[in-house]
Amino acid sequence: MRKNVLVVGAGGVGRVVAHKCALNSDILGDIHIASRSAEKCRAIVESIHEKKHMRSNAKLEWHQLDAMDVQATVDLIRKANAQIVINVGSAFVNMSVLSACLETGAAYIDTAIHEDPRKICETPPWYGNYEWKRAEECAKRGVTAILGAGFDPGVVNAYARLAKDEHFDQIKDIDIVDINAGSHGKYFATNFDPEINFREFTGVVYSWQNGAWQTNKMFEIGKEFDLPVVGKRKAYLTGHDEIHSLSRNFPNANVRFWMGFGDHYITVFNVLKNLGLLSEQPVKTAEGLEVVPLKVVKAVLPDPASLAPDYTGKTCIGDFISGTKDGVDKEIFVYNVADHKEAFNEVGAQGISYTAGVPAAVAALLIAQGDWDVRKMANVEELSPWPFIKGLHQNGLKTFLKDERGEDRLISE
Amino acid sequence: MRKNVLVVGAGGVGRVVAHKCALNSDILGDIHIASRSAEKCRAIVESIHEKKHMRSNAKLEWHQLDAMDVQATVDLIRKANAQIVINVGSAFVNMSVLSACLETGAAYIDTAIHEDPRKICETPPWYGNYEWKRAEECAKRGVTAILGAGFDPGVVNAYARLAKDEHFDQIKDIDIVDINAGSHGKYFATNFDPEINFREFTGVVYSWQNGAWQTNKMFEIGKEFDLPVVGKRKAYLTGHDEIHSLSRNFPNANVRFWMGFGDHYITVFNVLKNLGLLSEQPVKTAEGLEVVPLKVVKAVLPDPASLAPDYTGKTCIGDFISGTKDGVDKEIFVYNVADHKEAFNEVGAQGISYTAGVPAAVAALLIAQGDWDVRKMANVEELSPWPFIKGLHQNGLKTFLKDERGEDRLISE
Repeated sequence: MRKNVLVVGAGGVGRVVAHKCALNSDILGDIHIASRSAEKCRAIVESIHEKKHMRSNAKLEWHQLDAMDVQATVDLIRKANAQIVINVGSAFVNMSVLSACLETGAAYIDTAIHEDPRKICETPPWYGNYEWKRAEECAKRGVTAILGAGFDPGVVNAYARLAKDEHFDQIKDIDIVDINAGSHGKYFATNFDPEINFREFTGVVYSWQNGAWQTNKMFEIGKEFDLPVVGKRKAYLTGHDEIHSLSRNFPNANVRFWMGFGDHYITVFNVLKNLGLLSEQPVKTAEGLEVVPLKVVKAVLPDPASLAPDYTGKTCIGDFISGTKDGVDKEIFVYNVADHKEAFNEVGAQGISYTAGVPAAVAALLIAQGDWDVRKMANVEELSPWPFIKGLHQNGLKTFLKDERGEDRLISE
Repeated sequence: MRKNVLVVGAGGVGRVVAHKCALNSDILGDIHIASRSAEKCRAIVESIHEKKHMRSNAKLEWHQLDAMDVQATVDLIRKANAQIVINVGSAFVNMSVLSACLETGAAYIDTAIHEDPRKICETPPWYGNYEWKRAEECAKRGVTAILGAGFDPGVVNAYARLAKDEHFDQIKDIDIVDINAGSHGKYFATNFDPEINFREFTGVVYSWQNGAWQTNKMFEIGKEFDLPVVGKRKAYLTGHDEIHSLSRNFPNANVRFWMGFGDHYITVFNVLKNLGLLSEQPVKTAEGLEVVPLKVVKAVLPDPASLAPDYTGKTCIGDFISGTKDGVDKEIFVYNVADHKEAFNEVGAQGISYTAGVPAAVAALLIAQGDWDVRKMANVEELSPWPFIKGLHQNGLKTFLKDERGEDRLISE
């Protein structure tokens, strides 16, 4: 049994994680929230108190922290006596937070691959570039490190594992589909930090097909999916973290990721990209001022956190998995549907943050309770899926399965 | 007879004006080019020498000048002994250059209304805001000041006057149509300084209809025109300088200006505008840097001057004029067609600069020769149109007239 959680990061996802940890503080113990922004931490603590989400008289504290500073992170982990660290800070701090966990023995959880701020869309193997280089050290020191434990990557990896365990003898295709059918009511906005959000789409699109990496351009390959609840939606082949770990764990399957985009998003994105306004390379104005265009675009766009109160509609994220069982071809769809408004009412964040944050808190619960305290580095598909899927259900994310006969049922209860 | 010309401004239009003045230097005498940028002035002088465009052994000189500085401009006019000043500098210097002309007695020519850099799309009466306040002083001092002597405003005003003099008893509608059917081969670019170009389209659209100012939004009213040479083209109701002076000189006519835009231009413009990237109000980046978004957009767009070498296709600008003659309703179209490539081959500028610059040089010739040396302030429709139209023809811009029977003929020869 491990206890006391340190949440690194106080954006929308950090808020969800903190609320969900508080709601499980009878199991998790003390909850500490740390971020560069004291103000954002404080707002989350206030929100938890306001909603009376603490379930024990354990501590709820916040701390200002530069998570790029390993020693400061080590000191905070020790001071908080945290045995579990949930890293939902910027994509640039994974390696420093993991280093602090290795030094202190605390378990580590994150929800996205590490990125170098100076690079855009690095080439696969992504986990191989940074995280997996530490796998041996984790195993040697007996440190649990769960990588990519959000929704995608995360829950979608568990769905693939579930399919392998129970529904197929052989898996041919794993098509992960992520549709946000919600509406924020603004002309245009990104659901995450625009700098991170756009970086996902400005490079080469990678997919794993026929046993090798395939490359395409963004918005080159589009496909309409007919989905439960949200209906027919257009999605585009996109590079995404989980393709890499799934390609290692399902080397004979085709692994593709499809992100839903409306025509309006694509138009705005293409204009900005083609004009050079998504560039992270500085330009000089006629007046001689050096400016990074992407940072100006970020400055004029709505703050993603500001979207939550007015966000309506639903998300649908899941895995289309096809293959053979007992010699017969079949396809299933394992998925979740989340509601933006319900998420906001519960924890003050929109559905995208909610679906990313709940799984990380559930992963912490599974480590605290022992199910996932594997004392090594692991991606989610390498772990037992049922405790995760059940835990998600208890914490607000239900799982449905539409089988080869078109029958759709709740499987997570 | 007046002589010796000072050209203020060394952008694309300044280049055309300087070349055309040089080609008429047997009449105009010395040619002086002044701008904030010594480099641009020097390039124009070199281009004139290279093309052997000087037609006399008069002087061809350039000067660095801040035309906002009235005394410096007065000093330069005197030093150059310039009796004619052609102001094709930024829209912000009209008042200071006019002041210098009033002090020295030099004739003044410009091609666009004065603008205050701190305001965007001021409300009508535009000329009344600045230029016409000096009309009395011009008359008192006997200073010739020809306002708006480019193509539009300028030539299109002369076309309206021609129609009134020779083709109608009563004019009902003056619809000025400006179509650039050329292609610069870039994803997106503006033909003038993006700061000025976008400012034209970010405010309210004014037109003069039924004896009063009407307001619309940009891109609210679109209409397809079937034009000679360039064919069917969509144009949008737009505010433009000449609507104001024509509304005073043709108060009973409806005066509208239509600017051609392709769907792609409108898409890009709308994205930039709706995101707030065309704003001249500074925003602050996450890093605390204060930046004016419009200046960043300008920095990433191609320099308009760089478009000229690869510009192909044609422009068509003219006036649809309808009314009655001898009790019968009729409509005519008076117009010019210019070619981007031909303009570049002749003077190293694209067609948009060419059509704006040639008329200003012709106006200078008409002042030098006495036809337009009216010793007061005047808009082009208040002056005799034939010497202007003939002079344009001799200097590269032909005028055609398509009459009520659909017959199309060259009238400027």
